[in-house]
Amino acid sequence: MVFYMGFDQENIISIRDFSIDDVEYILKLAEKMEPIARSEKASNILAGKILGMLFYEPSTRTRLSFETSMKRLGGSTVGFAEAGVSSVTKGENLNDTVKIVSEYVDAIVIRHNMEGAARYVSDIVDVPVINAGDGAGQHPSQTLLDLYTMKRILGQIEDLNVSLIGDLKYGRTVHSLVYALAMFGVNMNFVSPPELRMPQGILHDLSKMGVSVKETTDIKDVINRSDVLYVTRIQKERFPDPEEYSRIKGAYTLDLKLLEGTETIVMHPLPRIDEISHDVDNSVYGKYFQQAFYGVPVRMAILQTMIKGF
Amino acid sequence: MVFYMGFDQENIISIRDFSIDDVEYILKLAEKMEPIARSEKASNILAGKILGMLFYEPSTRTRLSFETSMKRLGGSTVGFAEAGVSSVTKGENLNDTVKIVSEYVDAIVIRHNMEGAARYVSDIVDVPVINAGDGAGQHPSQTLLDLYTMKRILGQIEDLNVSLIGDLKYGRTVHSLVYALAMFGVNMNFVSPPELRMPQGILHDLSKMGVSVKETTDIKDVINRSDVLYVTRIQKERFPDPEEYSRIKGAYTLDLKLLEGTETIVMHPLPRIDEISHDVDNSVYGKYFQQAFYGVPVRMAILQTMIKGF
Amino acid sequence: MVFYMGFDQENIISIRDFSIDDVEYILKLAEKMEPIARSEKASNILAGKILGMLFYEPSTRTRLSFETSMKRLGGSTVGFAEAGVSSVTKGENLNDTVKIVSEYVDAIVIRHNMEGAARYVSDIVDVPVINAGDGAGQHPSQTLLDLYTMKRILGQIEDLNVSLIGDLKYGRTVHSLVYALAMFGVNMNFVSPPELRMPQGILHDLSKMGVSVKETTDIKDVINRSDVLYVTRIQKERFPDPEEYSRIKGAYTLDLKLLEGTETIVMHPLPRIDEISHDVDNSVYGKYFQQAFYGVPVRMAILQTMIKGF
Repeated sequence: MVFYMGFDQENIISIRDFSIDDVEYILKLAEKMEPIARSEKASNILAGKILGMLFYEPSTRTRLSFETSMKRLGGSTVGFAEAGVSSVTKGENLNDTVKIVSEYVDAIVIRHNMEGAARYVSDIVDVPVINAGDGAGQHPSQTLLDLYTMKRILGQIEDLNVSLIGDLKYGRTVHSLVYALAMFGVNMNFVSPPELRMPQGILHDLSKMGVSVKETTDIKDVINRSDVLYVTRIQKERFPDPEEYSRIKGAYTLDLKLLEGTETIVMHPLPRIDEISHDVDNSVYGKYFQQAFYGVPVRMAILQTMIKGF
Repeated sequence: MVFYMGFDQENIISIRDFSIDDVEYILKLAEKMEPIARSEKASNILAGKILGMLFYEPSTRTRLSFETSMKRLGGSTVGFAEAGVSSVTKGENLNDTVKIVSEYVDAIVIRHNMEGAARYVSDIVDVPVINAGDGAGQHPSQTLLDLYTMKRILGQIEDLNVSLIGDLKYGRTVHSLVYALAMFGVNMNFVSPPELRMPQGILHDLSKMGVSVKETTDIKDVINRSDVLYVTRIQKERFPDPEEYSRIKGAYTLDLKLLEGTETIVMHPLPRIDEISHDVDNSVYGKYFQQAFYGVPVRMAILQTMIKGF
Repeated sequence: MVFYMGFDQENIISIRDFSIDDVEYILKLAEKMEPIARSEKASNILAGKILGMLFYEPSTRTRLSFETSMKRLGGSTVGFAEAGVSSVTKGENLNDTVKIVSEYVDAIVIRHNMEGAARYVSDIVDVPVINAGDGAGQHPSQTLLDLYTMKRILGQIEDLNVSLIGDLKYGRTVHSLVYALAMFGVNMNFVSPPELRMPQGILHDLSKMGVSVKETTDIKDVINRSDVLYVTRIQKERFPDPEEYSRIKGAYTLDLKLLEGTETIVMHPLPRIDEISHDVDNSVYGKYFQQAFYGVPVRMAILQTMIKGF
């Protein structure tokens, strides 16, 4: 690869550790991985290599996506898909478990319920660590595949209009995503009920980064001037009053009727409950299953870079 | 392959979707797979390919058999061995889970407790779907391996005398098997307690297909004129009265003494409880572990056909 | 391999089935495996081969270590990481499950809670069986990796001074290890509270083998003349009185202060609770994570020998 010499991540812990060059390096490499991800081409680039999958919290999509990526590149995985309660609660056990597994494998992917777990692990082991979600913290491969989806479908990330919709207060995914979008100078709209607004701290950071942001409670305010509607789930548990929840939920649900006539695409990190109607799935608007697919070439790019270097 | 050009299954959902040519295509290909299944020959025909294993109900044998088949052919698997209750109960989740997984893999094997689940899935995804058991419904790879076992051990399927023994009322396996046997003009005996007779609808279908069928309650009526005794489990739950169950169970149990002097083989889809005595296991009659082995070349044939075409 | 022609283990059930030549054969082969275990070299020696992993009891370390070993050699694994209660309790099911799995795979690794389970299984199947722990019984690959660790770090096993510390009464690991060390003429010290002394039967056997053994209750008696401190966990459940447990535990805990000035190494089969202080982990004394790594080349040597012959 001659197009970029600067990638210097030893671990993938937070998207905020990435420079714009780091992001572009991964996205460019992901594009080269696509024929392998589509099963049009076989690869043995990671033959003999082992990826340790330590999923202290269950996650079908992220786990299967990383496993698929490793195996499409000729590598193998070992690990566990969910931890006994005992291992999760004792910090000491986490320490020894990851030290031992790091003696077996070439890289570790970890999902853990404790914020900061992935960075803690990266400090104590000698192999690269990839954060696949640490509680309320980071999930950087999700952010990278979100960016890749925009680039592949819309041709670029720069200067897009991206509207983030739903729970912007608690959503881990959107918090990571907005910092990454800000790096690319994306114009953002934040659409949420007043109770679930984007946290002030993040709004402040974005303002300092010189990013244009608009806040609203109504999808209709943004739908005609958005290139991307990035929808997230509103969780019932956030509302003390179930009736309040029902009323609000309806206002942040997308269906085909609402989308018709627009020129936007709909993305979602999945799983959804009912914030996107099923009639959107096979329409020209619904891109969330394609987005799920793009997780494979992006994670291939991450795995190759972490295990083989660049 | 020039011996047959007609296989047109895009999915493997029910043995009743198969023509006799389809069945013979798979059985012939399975024979070519045997040296690989026996580990005498390595294969890379499915290198780089990924099989999604979605087991919403646990199944050690079927799952390990499909995994072994995929891996012996150089391919890989991803998936889960048992689903959380939540995913099983919500139809919507099944939809999104299989759509997402279908973005990662080259084919899906699914076992689900709901009858019709596999066909439902095959309608919504773009990769081939193989039914590994859907509740009271179908389990076509079991039927194909049953047929293959008869062909390999007895040289042919046509004109055999096959006696099906045990629970013929509720047994999913035997319901699929009899339609397949009927295609080959097999003479069938149905041996069961009166409470667990073959359903009238199936008897009617077989009669229309011109198949010779005899019903009896006594194994001794058939044991000397059977080429195959296909034994199934009688479940205690079918009987309100435990004494009735105990009495009946004994009359449908095979042991070596009963078999001596006959020229039959004993098959069983497994797992058994005690309907076949252990003294039959290593006798010339007991073929159920060999039958389990034949599941591998048959599933290899299925996987190659579904993933690589024919 | 011309250096040794005598290995005649068809299965790996107990270290006590091994001659000293058998042990040395595995240790020499493990040394050749190290570059593959370190991911410096890829191997396809077990390509197309399948290892059945039947873990009736969960075990992260042993399971991941065997899986890594198989996959680094180009092979694959199938199996389960923990059994439903039903399969564990019924002897009949164990019989049928292992018979069926043996029809799919090239070798079986089994962990089971019943002492003798692995030998029972090896008697009924036609593929090699490797015992990965059977209740209070044997765990021979652990003993082999313990020996390998001593040989690799200290250059030899013969004539070492090895002190075994902690629960010597119930510890499965140390019971296997002392017989193996005795074969190599190792001088042994047994350091334990009086309640947890090495059983008389084993002391008697060692005496008959002409091995020098010293017993003490105090680590300080041995620490300056030990090449190896092999530490094991003292389980709370062994003591009716919790205060007694707390008092004793402290006397069998190693920390850096105690070790300073000595020329010993510290080994541990893991997992530890707090019998070794974390300040030992990265010191020159702590070798237990390196010991965990050595499990991979040793198990590779076992797998190659069992599956490919020697």
